[in-house]
Amino acid sequence: SVEIYPHNKEERIARTWGTTAPGLPYVDEAITPAGNWLIGGDLEVLQPIKYNDGLDHYRLSPQQLRDEFDKRGADAVFAFQLRNPVHNGHALLMNDTRRRLLEMGFKNPILLLHPLGGFTKADDVPLPVRMEQHSKVLEDGVLDPETTIVSIFPSPMHYAGPTEVQWHAKARINAGANFYIVGRDPAGMGHPTEKRDLYNPDHGKKVLSMAPGLEKLNILPFKVAAYDTVAKKMAFFEPSRSQDFLFISGTKMRTFAKTGENPPDGFMCPGGWKVLVDYYNSLQTEGATAPAAATV
Amino acid sequence: SVEIYPHNKEERIARTWGTTAPGLPYVDEAITPAGNWLIGGDLEVLQPIKYNDGLDHYRLSPQQLRDEFDKRGADAVFAFQLRNPVHNGHALLMNDTRRRLLEMGFKNPILLLHPLGGFTKADDVPLPVRMEQHSKVLEDGVLDPETTIVSIFPSPMHYAGPTEVQWHAKARINAGANFYIVGRDPAGMGHPTEKRDLYNPDHGKKVLSMAPGLEKLNILPFKVAAYDTVAKKMAFFEPSRSQDFLFISGTKMRTFAKTGENPPDGFMCPGGWKVLVDYYNSLQTEGATAPAAATV
Repeated sequence: SVEIYPHNKEERIARTWGTTAPGLPYVDEAITPAGNWLIGGDLEVLQPIKYNDGLDHYRLSPQQLRDEFDKRGADAVFAFQLRNPVHNGHALLMNDTRRRLLEMGFKNPILLLHPLGGFTKADDVPLPVRMEQHSKVLEDGVLDPETTIVSIFPSPMHYAGPTEVQWHAKARINAGANFYIVGRDPAGMGHPTEKRDLYNPDHGKKVLSMAPGLEKLNILPFKVAAYDTVAKKMAFFEPSRSQDFLFISGTKMRTFAKTGENPPDGFMCPGGWKVLVDYYNSLQTEGATAPAAATV
Repeated sequence: SVEIYPHNKEERIARTWGTTAPGLPYVDEAITPAGNWLIGGDLEVLQPIKYNDGLDHYRLSPQQLRDEFDKRGADAVFAFQLRNPVHNGHALLMNDTRRRLLEMGFKNPILLLHPLGGFTKADDVPLPVRMEQHSKVLEDGVLDPETTIVSIFPSPMHYAGPTEVQWHAKARINAGANFYIVGRDPAGMGHPTEKRDLYNPDHGKKVLSMAPGLEKLNILPFKVAAYDTVAKKMAFFEPSRSQDFLFISGTKMRTFAKTGENPPDGFMCPGGWKVLVDYYNSLQTEGATAPAAATV
């Protein structure tokens, strides 16, 4: 059955983001310019959408992912949602999760590395660059290709914190995941008009543990990784020697890559880092067209 | 365990009301003037709260209500949430619900007439006047005292539409109700700054049918009653002869009572109507103090 109903943008925005302040990226991108009526109902899939961008082989449907997990004989699937290049801190976390699952008695835990493929903020690294970077991370052996499946999660990014993280988790349950890694302030961002986080950084994790429909999913809280300046590698942060650790944010990472400055040794595998540097170099040679390219 | 956390008023308001527009009654009454920190945790009830307003015998706890339903041998309990005087349209609906439950095979359906006892808008009729009006409605036999329990629901009114109706329904489940009567736009109001309903009038009913935790409750959709000018009584509205029906809103009813004009015969039982007229008369003799008295 088909339903046509008014698009109450204010209510949709308020209930999804918990604010109606101007400057929410997905609101500006998709909701404000949308029409005043919505249509809903049952869907019939005629054929899978092709993007013809050279990345369609990464776009596995939930059923294709389940088949792939079966083919590999997975007895546990742990999902990692990301929209950034994989640095060695992420890799540490994923490899440590696998180790913990083996300790719990699973024989063949498989990682679903599931980068978000839809709309992201203009200053996020574009999907094709990220996919190339992820390939290098597997080539360089930072993640084990035997126990990792890389697939594109075709959703747009809403930056809607505790609301969005439920979608992120539910979608991965549908694709066969039974463990989900969640960090501090998932899908969060700064308040668009005030100098503070938009969300309480603990609410994402909290809501996952309580939301109806997510009972089947085991939530694995994220330990924070940072650059250990003594060991010269990414390591789990130890509060007792906090002065030894360096937090390298996404913004800082992009600034390194843009200015051609090298991040500390051991932050990211060299092949992966080169992808980012090449990308930012290409933007600089393109000059004025750079901002448009960044939103591809 | 005790938890102390920041009071994110903007997020709380946006997620509860689906808007952050100024002029939401409960926000102005309770949230804006509140502090910036909240405290939560497990509660231990030392003794029931007494209001000492002559109405405490109406304030039954959920357990007391369950005991009362048992004592009366109820095999079905249907709840009616209201914050207005009971007119004959409401009574028609409640009596018709009882008739339907008897037809469904229940032997002794009991009505929980559960007027809201906390904060309401300044122009709503104050609780003591409403309770007196409800008494007259039972005295006059418009509702059957044998099969009706009148009790005060001590919640404040949030006017939060689809969010609030879930609270209204869940609270009545806890008190032993298994049928809940829900109308058009429950707990709704006009948008505080735009000329439209704040909520889609169908969303309240829809959300009750889908919300987790409400599976046990049978939702009884409200048929609209209006004044039938031909039959000279409140009756279920018939679209085929819409010109015969008169809709008397709460505002119109209050205007009648304030100006001393009588509503059409059969709108409300005479004893109940007299309570309202006396109340508005008393406001006029009090003169300038009337607005304050109306918020009692």
